Amino acid sequence: MVATCPSRTSLARIANKWTAMIVIALSTGPLRFGEVREAVNGISGKVLADTLRDLERDGIITRTAYDQMPPRVDYELTPLGRTLREPLTALARWAESHIEEVITARDQYDSAR
Amino acid sequence: MVATCPSRTSLARIANKWTAMIVIALSTGPLRFGEVREAVNGISGKVLADTLRDLERDGIITRTAYDQMPPRVDYELTPLGRTLREPLTALARWAESHIEEVITARDQYDSAR
Repeated sequence: MVATCPSRTSLARIANKWTAMIVIALSTGPLRFGEVREAVNGISGKVLADTLRDLERDGIITRTAYDQMPPRVDYELTPLGRTLREPLTALARWAESHIEEVITARDQYDSAR
Repeated sequence: MVATCPSRTSLARIANKWTAMIVIALSTGPLRFGEVREAVNGISGKVLADTLRDLERDGIITRTAYDQMPPRVDYELTPLGRTLREPLTALARWAESHIEEVITARDQYDSAR
């Protein structure tokens, strides 16, 4: 894969833990900013805002601001973003089903050093 | 997903562009360090070495040093690592097949601002 290849930039964006967690969080329907933040526990407000803006720019989510008080902003997967659910959910499932093997490997690696 | 959940750490490791590119590069068989670096064009030697060590520690690849001159070190997917080929290849395929839509979305986003 060539360093300047555009699909590489695209892979860099989606092969990212926050992207994966945000897309999975939005997979059941639209959420407000605070709800995404709650679902993606541990992300800073700044990183979440930046990642949501990048995903909006890439056409993976939409951002809808409602003209009401208190202000309300919803984030939702686009049709393009919905096509990402399957590969990212597969990756998250891999992480969950193989975590024990990874922990065992780490313990063995660390105790051998 | 809880911030301290171990499968989250595991997702963070695999949902990473370098991990994806390294696992895909090794999917057809073992490679030497220089060959991995060539396949994952654009990665620095330091980041590649660090990522390979993390993947070895997690049980995803093996590192085999041959006692010969010049020195030779091979990296190869473990059986666990081979189970990652499918989800990571699916993600890379997504990036390749949807890149045009992502570029179009970016252009629209940028020209609207």
